[in-house]
Amino acid sequence: MELTEKTIKTDVIYNGNFINLEKLTVKLPNGKEASREVVRHPGAVAIVPLTSDNEVLMVRQYRKPLDKVLLEIPAGKLNYGEDPFECGVRELEEETGCTAEKYTFAGQIISAPGFSDEVLSIYIATGLKQGSQNLDEDEFLTVEKIPFNTVIELILKNEIEDAKTIVGILKTKLLLGL
Amino acid sequence: MELTEKTIKTDVIYNGNFINLEKLTVKLPNGKEASREVVRHPGAVAIVPLTSDNEVLMVRQYRKPLDKVLLEIPAGKLNYGEDPFECGVRELEEETGCTAEKYTFAGQIISAPGFSDEVLSIYIATGLKQGSQNLDEDEFLTVEKIPFNTVIELILKNEIEDAKTIVGILKTKLLLGL
Repeated sequence: MELTEKTIKTDVIYNGNFINLEKLTVKLPNGKEASREVVRHPGAVAIVPLTSDNEVLMVRQYRKPLDKVLLEIPAGKLNYGEDPFECGVRELEEETGCTAEKYTFAGQIISAPGFSDEVLSIYIATGLKQGSQNLDEDEFLTVEKIPFNTVIELILKNEIEDAKTIVGILKTKLLLGL
Repeated sequence: MELTEKTIKTDVIYNGNFINLEKLTVKLPNGKEASREVVRHPGAVAIVPLTSDNEVLMVRQYRKPLDKVLLEIPAGKLNYGEDPFECGVRELEEETGCTAEKYTFAGQIISAPGFSDEVLSIYIATGLKQGSQNLDEDEFLTVEKIPFNTVIELILKNEIEDAKTIVGILKTKLLLGL
C-alpha cells in the first residue's frame, strides 16, 4: 500500500527563535490534496546521569507551555547543525555541574511525529564527576539526586510525565539490567 | 528557588486546523523579560492493543514532518474537549478494526514540554475482538501483528523511534510483567 504524501507547496508561516512553522499542501496516496502543519525543530538531546550508587540526577524545571514544574532528566536543544553528543556533554555540565567518564547511546526518539520533526538523542552518562552548575543566564532549574528504583516508581505512579524522561529511564533499565 | 515564569503578553501567531501557535512574553524569576513560543495542541491518545498471544497490533504510517513511514501503536488526536478514553476506543476501532473487553490506563505523557502543551494518554487494550478497519477518508496506514518481545527488540535496536510507542510498550512490560 502506498503511504507517502508528496509535498506540492510549502508556506512558511513563522520563523521563530528556535522553531519554525510551515503549512504544507500535500498530495495524498489517493491523489487528493490535503494540508499539513509542521513545526520544524533543530533537534535535542537528553542525558540519563547515573551515579555509582544508582541514583539519577534529575532537574525540576518550569515549562511554560504546561504552566507547571516538571521533573525531567537533563536536556537541551541543539544549535542548528550541532552534534547531539557534544550538545549532551555540554548540557549535562551546565545543568548539573557533572562531567562523565562514559556515555552510552540509548537511541533517539521522535517526540511528536504528527506535527513536528523534532528528533531527540538519549545518552546514559556514568562515571560522574561533580563540578559546579553553570546555567544559561535565563535558565532556572534545581537538581535532585533520586534513587533509580524511586524514579521507576514515580513513572509507574504517573508522577513523571515527560516523554523523553520515561523513555530514557526505562531504556536504561533494560540496557543496564537495573 | 522560584522557577515560575509569569505571562505578561500573548500574541497569537497562527490558528491552524489542529494546532495554534502563540508567542508569549514572560517575566523570568530574575525579573527579566523573555519570549516563549508555544504550540497549543488539543491532546491525543494512544493504545497498546495486546492479543491473548502477546502480540501487539501496530500501524505503519507516513509522517509528513519526518518524511518517512513510522511503526507506531494506534493513536489519534482528540477533538477539542473530547474524553481521551472515548477517543482511544474510537481510534482503535477505526485504525485496526478491533474492539477490546478491557482497557488499562497506563499514564499520560507530555510529548515536547519545551515548546508544546500536548498531553497524550495511553491505554493498554486487551480481550481484543477483530472487526473491520474503518479509516478516515484521508488516512492511510497498514496494520501488523508483532510479537511483544519482537517489539521490545525493535525498541532496543532503535528501529522504533516514536516516543509514545516506546513509552506505551515499556510501561506495558512493567505493568503486566511481560
